[in-house]
Amino acid sequence: MLSNRLRHKALFNKIVTSKEAASWIQNGMTIGFSGFTSSGDPKQLPIAIAERAHKEGKPFKINVYTGASVSPHIDSVLAEYMNLRLPFQSNDTLRKEINQGHIRYIDQHLSETGDALNTHAIPQVDIAVVEALAITEDGNIIPTTSCGNTHNYIKNAKEVIVELNLAQPLSLEGVHDIYDIPAFGRRQAIPLTSVDQRIGCTGIPVEFDRIKGIVVTNVPDTPKKLIEPDKETIIIADHLLNFLQEEVKAGRLSKKLPPLQSGVGSVANAVFYGFLRSEFSDLQLYSEVLQDSVFDLIDEGKVRFASGGALTLSEAKMNRVLQNFEKYREKIVLRPQDMSNNPEIIRRLGLITINTALEVDIYGNVNSTHVMGSKMMNGIGGSGDFTRNARISIFVTKSTAKNGCISSIVPFASHIDHTAHDTMVIITEQGVADLRGLSPRERAEEIMKNCAHPSYRNQLYDYFHEALQRGGYTPHVIEKAFSWHTRFAESGTMLEPMIKAEKPKAKMSVH
Amino acid sequence: MLSNRLRHKALFNKIVTSKEAASWIQNGMTIGFSGFTSSGDPKQLPIAIAERAHKEGKPFKINVYTGASVSPHIDSVLAEYMNLRLPFQSNDTLRKEINQGHIRYIDQHLSETGDALNTHAIPQVDIAVVEALAITEDGNIIPTTSCGNTHNYIKNAKEVIVELNLAQPLSLEGVHDIYDIPAFGRRQAIPLTSVDQRIGCTGIPVEFDRIKGIVVTNVPDTPKKLIEPDKETIIIADHLLNFLQEEVKAGRLSKKLPPLQSGVGSVANAVFYGFLRSEFSDLQLYSEVLQDSVFDLIDEGKVRFASGGALTLSEAKMNRVLQNFEKYREKIVLRPQDMSNNPEIIRRLGLITINTALEVDIYGNVNSTHVMGSKMMNGIGGSGDFTRNARISIFVTKSTAKNGCISSIVPFASHIDHTAHDTMVIITEQGVADLRGLSPRERAEEIMKNCAHPSYRNQLYDYFHEALQRGGYTPHVIEKAFSWHTRFAESGTMLEPMIKAEKPKAKMSVH
Repeated sequence: MLSNRLRHKALFNKIVTSKEAASWIQNGMTIGFSGFTSSGDPKQLPIAIAERAHKEGKPFKINVYTGASVSPHIDSVLAEYMNLRLPFQSNDTLRKEINQGHIRYIDQHLSETGDALNTHAIPQVDIAVVEALAITEDGNIIPTTSCGNTHNYIKNAKEVIVELNLAQPLSLEGVHDIYDIPAFGRRQAIPLTSVDQRIGCTGIPVEFDRIKGIVVTNVPDTPKKLIEPDKETIIIADHLLNFLQEEVKAGRLSKKLPPLQSGVGSVANAVFYGFLRSEFSDLQLYSEVLQDSVFDLIDEGKVRFASGGALTLSEAKMNRVLQNFEKYREKIVLRPQDMSNNPEIIRRLGLITINTALEVDIYGNVNSTHVMGSKMMNGIGGSGDFTRNARISIFVTKSTAKNGCISSIVPFASHIDHTAHDTMVIITEQGVADLRGLSPRERAEEIMKNCAHPSYRNQLYDYFHEALQRGGYTPHVIEKAFSWHTRFAESGTMLEPMIKAEKPKAKMSVH
Repeated sequence: MLSNRLRHKALFNKIVTSKEAASWIQNGMTIGFSGFTSSGDPKQLPIAIAERAHKEGKPFKINVYTGASVSPHIDSVLAEYMNLRLPFQSNDTLRKEINQGHIRYIDQHLSETGDALNTHAIPQVDIAVVEALAITEDGNIIPTTSCGNTHNYIKNAKEVIVELNLAQPLSLEGVHDIYDIPAFGRRQAIPLTSVDQRIGCTGIPVEFDRIKGIVVTNVPDTPKKLIEPDKETIIIADHLLNFLQEEVKAGRLSKKLPPLQSGVGSVANAVFYGFLRSEFSDLQLYSEVLQDSVFDLIDEGKVRFASGGALTLSEAKMNRVLQNFEKYREKIVLRPQDMSNNPEIIRRLGLITINTALEVDIYGNVNSTHVMGSKMMNGIGGSGDFTRNARISIFVTKSTAKNGCISSIVPFASHIDHTAHDTMVIITEQGVADLRGLSPRERAEEIMKNCAHPSYRNQLYDYFHEALQRGGYTPHVIEKAFSWHTRFAESGTMLEPMIKAEKPKAKMSVH
């Protein structure tokens, strides 16, 4: 029954094997893949491309563009054949290659790939390879479980190869809202003013001529491994909920909170599960990735509407959600990432944004990406798009890592993705630092007191007090700014050799 | 002839001396002043406040909010009476106090003060003190040479004191476009889609009841000191124009450039003067401050329309422009800073933004604010609002400072205001580094090769090559990252003791 998926007879002539389609991908090409956080990415063609390249044994490197991270069948399998990769990844194989300098990686705000293409700031897409639910009679490609950059790649590409995935249920049709932001010079205001509004089409227009081939697949999305919230992430979630409750009490927020955004990962998931046991209801999400917790929140009547860019679910949840999608249809919309992460919309809707930090310095600068300043973990993803346009920008992190050998609160962040101008609230399992309306010296006090782990608190105060002696708006002891990172590299811990007993120091005036 | 300025008879009863008005300002209050880059700020009342505080000799501290930097009669005269100051300053006295920690200073994106007030993230305004051209019969305060945050302060304040400045010509009336962005939760799309569009009112509504007093003054704005472009700034301007010409040749820009924004200062002014001798015409500006050069460009028919937030002119130019304002009226609009710097509009219009860096690291992170990591110079101003939403974000700086003892290109920026995700083009008198579409290691090569001063180039390569040995996406030798700053602190120069002759090193592969 392909006819309910390929709704124009001309399309049937385009069906090819993945092997044949793979033969069209030439050395040096730029390929735009669908997919966002392992959802809705093509399953067969990337493998076929790698097999062919391996078999031919000739020089073969391509540029790989995606929505965000994608499954191992792209990022592991194709890693050795990649020249340039953007805008985000979270793959072990790829991470190694990137950190060794073998793959050029552009770590990009997820809202900006479309504009980068539009303005010819990056190589143009030769072929778009996109997973589809169906192709309509009038030439619309219906995406599957993510929107990503797919419409931008289809628009930009010379040719399009479709992976028609029969494993993705047709009940998903209609959940997408594809709004195509015009090129610079022709832009009007984007007419989206509420989370649940639809302003675009349910599919992506393409001329049949440009569809070079259709590969039929039947492979489900790579499920997300669920990491159960641990004690510390649950405490972080509680701190966050408590912070929001206090904001309501203080009259700065109404009980019906502004739309929420949350990054991907276990802390984020724990935070959203926290809402299950909170007083808050009638919640709205304007976020990137809709994880398991979102569907539980919908089931419990806590979430009224969720706008996202991808459904990224555990295996159990995926089966249940996709088989019962009618139940969720009216409460969900999936948008392309230049809409889900759009600065104009984020600032208009006034989001509360929750993202994960790797490292925070005493003044509130946040490192989201680099381990010890040099090694890329994943990438900035959407955290910048959201943070810098948020009504309240929140960063969460455990106060230590590596069994306490790394403090997440450091004198100077070894890489900066979010400057102190944009980070309003920092939360660790130790507590909440509300930085709004504070000058740098006050921010430092707030962060050290409320967020740092007790075993590092005195060390931080020592640094800060020495810095205060030197003065300045943002006092630093510049030659010691990275001494914690150097100590870790040398001794395996950021703790000073003489571990001091934690006794609160006499408070020194910061002004 | 006050009746053409105070257009309702009820207003005449409100006229008071500045001394009387000053008596209303109480210890602990938050005062919202009009004014942006020394334009349109109140002239008499700040002095009267300081005189009174001095005379009374009692504890007296107030919070001072403005649009951006303001004249010495606020920032010098009131410095000793300030508790909190935001969102920007460029005053010597104030800078010292801020760096000594005597004044709490919030260095804020200039677009965000309104939202910070709206969301109660900062103390609310007790009294707004605003310079006006006139107050209309129906209760609109007409601003003078800047819009700043004035409408937000008037809206937020319990009471308003007006300085009616007869030295500001009535011909300015009509040049303002006051659009009031609604609070979060009630926002629609901002309907501005072109530089020359008007979407608001020519004045700021206020209930007569809230006008506590009117002080009549007759004092011109503090003129901007003109710094003539030097050799290096002229070369920077030439590089920039050449870059734009190459973009046109490559088909990435049309000859009618996208709207331009430029920061304040001598380099910015030199760049704009560069346009005078360029092939470009029909230019549009969507900027903050309209400096002398803008009016010369209008005179020469190079600029079709300029949208800004303030007229900040030299003494000679101010007299000429204000006396002949009819000539410019149709080519200029002044907007509040949450509109001139609005991220929604900036990304919609697709600006080319030109801002000044203090320091740039080899990967393209930019320091705009802090000398040697700790000491505040002025503040981030609007540079973040523009850079992160630009179509092409350009930073300009001389490659060295302090007679060559400081390299503006360093291994690691000692403070980061703009992350490498957002900085697209770096220009020094040495050349242009176009970072678009490059990975960090490629960015480093481009910046070192094209922007660094020859006397520092080998030192930079040494650092980079040592970092490459360690690997990583953004390779660093973390314990040496700030060694240049430390060397400067110890020896007065960033140059290594053994100054190496400049000989190009064998190029090492970055991948």
